[in-house]
Amino acid sequence: MPVVDIHTHIYPPSYVSLLRSRTTVPYVRTFEDAPDSSRLIILPGEDDPSTPSTSRGRPIGAEYYDIAQKIAFMDQHKIDKSVISLANPWLDFLPKEEAGEAAKKLNDDVNDICAGYPGRLYAFATLPLSADTATIVSEIERLKGLKYVRGVIMGTSGLGKGLDDTELDPVYAALEKTQQMIFLHPHYGLPTSVYGPRGNEYGHVLPLALGFPLETTIAVSRMLLSGVWDRFQKLNVLLAHSGGTLPFLAGRLESCVKHDGHLKKAGKTENRRDVWDILKTNIYLDAVIYSDVGLKAAVDASGADRLMFGTDHPFFPPLEEDAEEWHSVNANYTAISSAFAGNDRAAQDVLGNNAIRILGLD
Amino acid sequence: MPVVDIHTHIYPPSYVSLLRSRTTVPYVRTFEDAPDSSRLIILPGEDDPSTPSTSRGRPIGAEYYDIAQKIAFMDQHKIDKSVISLANPWLDFLPKEEAGEAAKKLNDDVNDICAGYPGRLYAFATLPLSADTATIVSEIERLKGLKYVRGVIMGTSGLGKGLDDTELDPVYAALEKTQQMIFLHPHYGLPTSVYGPRGNEYGHVLPLALGFPLETTIAVSRMLLSGVWDRFQKLNVLLAHSGGTLPFLAGRLESCVKHDGHLKKAGKTENRRDVWDILKTNIYLDAVIYSDVGLKAAVDASGADRLMFGTDHPFFPPLEEDAEEWHSVNANYTAISSAFAGNDRAAQDVLGNNAIRILGLD
Repeated sequence: MPVVDIHTHIYPPSYVSLLRSRTTVPYVRTFEDAPDSSRLIILPGEDDPSTPSTSRGRPIGAEYYDIAQKIAFMDQHKIDKSVISLANPWLDFLPKEEAGEAAKKLNDDVNDICAGYPGRLYAFATLPLSADTATIVSEIERLKGLKYVRGVIMGTSGLGKGLDDTELDPVYAALEKTQQMIFLHPHYGLPTSVYGPRGNEYGHVLPLALGFPLETTIAVSRMLLSGVWDRFQKLNVLLAHSGGTLPFLAGRLESCVKHDGHLKKAGKTENRRDVWDILKTNIYLDAVIYSDVGLKAAVDASGADRLMFGTDHPFFPPLEEDAEEWHSVNANYTAISSAFAGNDRAAQDVLGNNAIRILGLD
Repeated sequence: MPVVDIHTHIYPPSYVSLLRSRTTVPYVRTFEDAPDSSRLIILPGEDDPSTPSTSRGRPIGAEYYDIAQKIAFMDQHKIDKSVISLANPWLDFLPKEEAGEAAKKLNDDVNDICAGYPGRLYAFATLPLSADTATIVSEIERLKGLKYVRGVIMGTSGLGKGLDDTELDPVYAALEKTQQMIFLHPHYGLPTSVYGPRGNEYGHVLPLALGFPLETTIAVSRMLLSGVWDRFQKLNVLLAHSGGTLPFLAGRLESCVKHDGHLKKAGKTENRRDVWDILKTNIYLDAVIYSDVGLKAAVDASGADRLMFGTDHPFFPPLEEDAEEWHSVNANYTAISSAFAGNDRAAQDVLGNNAIRILGLD
């Protein structure tokens, strides 16, 4: 039975070089007080100068850019195929005039990496979202010619104004027409003020555990409320981290839409595709949730035929420096076997069969 | 079989008078373009002057302050007992020197209201959180003498710096000692910037459906990370809206704590009470979630013996002006009967038995 990891990231060497050339987020550098520890700084505020450099961002090693380490990780955890994607923040930060060429180069690089391990690697490509719409659409069409590409990974900022921006319509139209999946992934989180004056004491916990999933949930809710799926009924979106919090909050979201006076006056509470319809028609979810409680809610909301195993590698590495086992990976394996106890078929679907069918892997 | 509503709000007449005397949020007033429609404005930004006054806040009628309407609503929906609480924003906005007396007056009022319907009404009291700690603790001790009070409703701001503020320790100690439940309820939401430039087009949907639950989740996570339940192991907290998103995100939260480099260096990843322990020992959840998907996750996370039915009355009123039935109430009834199909005992526990046992109702 095949195991397929659809949530697994890489920063190809050319992208790491780009990060090493930069001095503002995102960037990679060493600091004077720890010259042997390269730090990867990708989240706003992760480089707070009041903290020791060894607390800033995270150490970056070959697991971030060396595909041989990805393959070794896959072998160790019995993962047959991976659909790799550039990790956040992708190319969102590039100047408009550089983005188009950078995306081409990066997507060709990633496709070449996959070609080195035929049958084992596929990819979600990256869009040049800071470029003009024509450049983005042209890259989407070009991706159809890249043998290992199965869709695109995308953050929540779109062209800068979020995913409910109607200027994204040509992009959505091109993705729908070429039937390429959007893998929607958080990056920007929430303003740090929401974590209160003691937020820093808790490391990355609140932004990663809560800010990320809520960012995803807000983004997909804005798509829904702005009618993206009414206009593009065959647009498919894979939501990171089992949908952020959408499966749990779908009932409340639907209730709030129904009861909203403003939407009612605008005639927008009736004659629309509801949250549940879209969860079961356009949305796919990964199984990166570290607990059977959340996983079962994701299955209930979207269906066991729409969930796909993932690891979030190389993030959440082993808990001890000398450990081989990735606790984070095992937590997701355990959640699946527990959620589907007595239903091996469904477990196997989530572990691999769904991804092969949905993404058309060999 | 008794049905008990533990999430049901009232603004007693004296509190409405206070709101009518104010001109900044929170307040009640009519506007020149609609002199016959009193509007209740409680959320920041709800009174955006660029919108017609009939879109600001919500219309306020007797259902907000007249206890006879609460009783009629209970009769209509076959609710035997209600544990009423002041709705947000409580007394959070009062000047320090007024808060203590205002809380006494309000809590006496509410206790008297309950005394008018013995056996049918109980209450969560309100704390004077803008007063000094001694005043707050004194009110907590006084509440033990109020026959119908079973705990206190509280927002997420605490003394102004959130619920992970160690200056709240005397308050937590007094609540633990007197075994009064905290009903933790959102009010402040998230900064409006997170909803993007089109946020206003979606009415109250994003702040209510997503901002509220996330506010609760952040607040309870901050309590947990700051060790409140390590210091106060018998402090009980009832989380509004089935825990915000905590049941769904508990696995991710626990994983992020385990993997956090900063917490690890501080020795805070081991030897602590984990999220699941606290969910099953100190946390109770209401069943106000409008879907069996979320409800089942809440049950899985916390236990069917820890969930309690609620309505959020008088918010989310009937969808049509001439309708008698409250769609929102029926959605929560339906979620319970669906989640516990074939297990009438558990359904009855959630509908009423749990509340009677946990809150010591007659």
